Amino acid sequence: MSLFFRRSLSTASPFKNASKVVCIGRNYADHITELNNSKPKQPFFFLKPTSSILPPNSGAVIRPKGVDLHYEVELALIMGKRVKDLEPENEKEALDSVESYALSIDMTARNAQNEAKRKGLPWDIAKGFDTFLPMSNIISKSAIPNPHKAELYLTVNNEHRQADSTELMLFKIPRILSDISKVMTLEKGDIVLTGTPKGVGPVVPGDVMRAGIKVDGKELEEGKIEVAVEESTSTYDQDQFAHLSFFDHGRFGSLIDPGGGAESAIVPHFVHFLLSSLPLKLFTASLICVPKSVQ
Amino acid sequence: MSLFFRRSLSTASPFKNASKVVCIGRNYADHITELNNSKPKQPFFFLKPTSSILPPNSGAVIRPKGVDLHYEVELALIMGKRVKDLEPENEKEALDSVESYALSIDMTARNAQNEAKRKGLPWDIAKGFDTFLPMSNIISKSAIPNPHKAELYLTVNNEHRQADSTELMLFKIPRILSDISKVMTLEKGDIVLTGTPKGVGPVVPGDVMRAGIKVDGKELEEGKIEVAVEESTSTYDQDQFAHLSFFDHGRFGSLIDPGGGAESAIVPHFVHFLLSSLPLKLFTASLICVPKSVQ
Ligand SMILES: [Mg+2]
Ligand SMILES: [Mg+2]
Repeated sequence: MSLFFRRSLSTASPFKNASKVVCIGRNYADHITELNNSKPKQPFFFLKPTSSILPPNSGAVIRPKGVDLHYEVELALIMGKRVKDLEPENEKEALDSVESYALSIDMTARNAQNEAKRKGLPWDIAKGFDTFLPMSNIISKSAIPNPHKAELYLTVNNEHRQADSTELMLFKIPRILSDISKVMTLEKGDIVLTGTPKGVGPVVPGDVMRAGIKVDGKELEEGKIEVAVEESTSTYDQDQFAHLSFFDHGRFGSLIDPGGGAESAIVPHFVHFLLSSLPLKLFTASLICVPKSVQ
Repeated sequence: MSLFFRRSLSTASPFKNASKVVCIGRNYADHITELNNSKPKQPFFFLKPTSSILPPNSGAVIRPKGVDLHYEVELALIMGKRVKDLEPENEKEALDSVESYALSIDMTARNAQNEAKRKGLPWDIAKGFDTFLPMSNIISKSAIPNPHKAELYLTVNNEHRQADSTELMLFKIPRILSDISKVMTLEKGDIVLTGTPKGVGPVVPGDVMRAGIKVDGKELEEGKIEVAVEESTSTYDQDQFAHLSFFDHGRFGSLIDPGGGAESAIVPHFVHFLLSSLPLKLFTASLICVPKSVQ
């Protein structure tokens, strides 16, 4: 499918009024449990550029060269009005501010994200490539009477990968919207991604992802996503960005932080340091040597 | 100035066509030298939400409670067309794709950013509060014949804080636009911030920032920014987010990573770990204890 065709469609995208896309990290209890993480005490969030939006039937997800590309199926909220400084206990106002829903896949360059985490650098490249946000059609609000009681699923080549209920969200929608709106004003049309359940993993060119949402066991047609993965023809190459800085942890990173750690930085970060820190090795070596000389 | 007034003006903002704001980190040679950092081998970049844009004469920069608020004066590029997969050697195409310029201040919640760096979390909150991007009026392209030869300055209460030439940019505009455009397509109206020279520091409510740009020693009227800082009346409080996670490094952070480290994560990150890692302490303790029992 030509780029021109994809871009033409984008102009008519149901999401063209989004001035930003805000995404919550680490928001599913089971996913946190499987990674032995403690529950975060507050939601954290990040941005995806609107240029990453891939509207329905607009071509493939493009995998940049050298990128370990992961899927994360998420329920998306489409805002119906401006929201600023919302208090979390104001649940009705929060839910009323949502105009509609969509299903979304928060595509992530996992190796780039892991490198950013280790180096204390921003996530925006890892999350922000073109086509990294496949969206379904708009789902009317009435089709999902309770957004905390819907089943999300994602398959790769028809194999089940993710399937969980939105009731497992750690922070519910009012709290999410409150926290975001106290930092950045949400505008009508803005998109909020509510986090992914367990089961994230890689896709490669040739794979086909299908994702959807069920309410009371019934699939919502407008929430379906079917999208292939294709290799990029651009000269971008993620590998050229590895092994460059003073603190390059690429060698151990792939052993220690193997893909599944969607938005969970803490444990890999620490194990990584313990194994690979040169200063630590020198320090350890000095400790082991000292007792011999004082014996 | 009322929020209503500010919002009314925003609707007529010269930047209302921006679909995103992309910012380069660590791009001034002198700033890197003063921090004893090595030159990065590639630019890295992050997003600010368009909701953070503060157009000229639209009220104050609002400091959220508990935030260590820093200024970073930067030359902003306003894109004149869509740019995707631009090659860095294509300098003419890069410069032609810029429609105009503006002066900007990349306001940063430095304590939130430092915490994000230490924890491997995204920067978007630290960079993305409402009013965190004061902009000047549009500067026509002809007013800056060479964007790599202009003087940026910023004062706080009329005291000089930043004053350097854009010729100190480590990565020039063609390389910046190339790198961004290989990740995310730049659209007409998008804003690109090109990094800040040395001299970043804090401002507090009551302070007045003035910033500007000079070409051949002559100040450009349309590039002037004059903006006060006010305390937020929102219930957001940065202090409530400190000291929460398993890996909380707040205690040492303020000693090791004191404010001035705009976009430089590496050294504080490593020193910090060496000093404060609990597993390291336990590991060290076990090494010290073992020799006694085998003596
Ligand atoms: Mg996600
Ligand atoms: Mg900056």
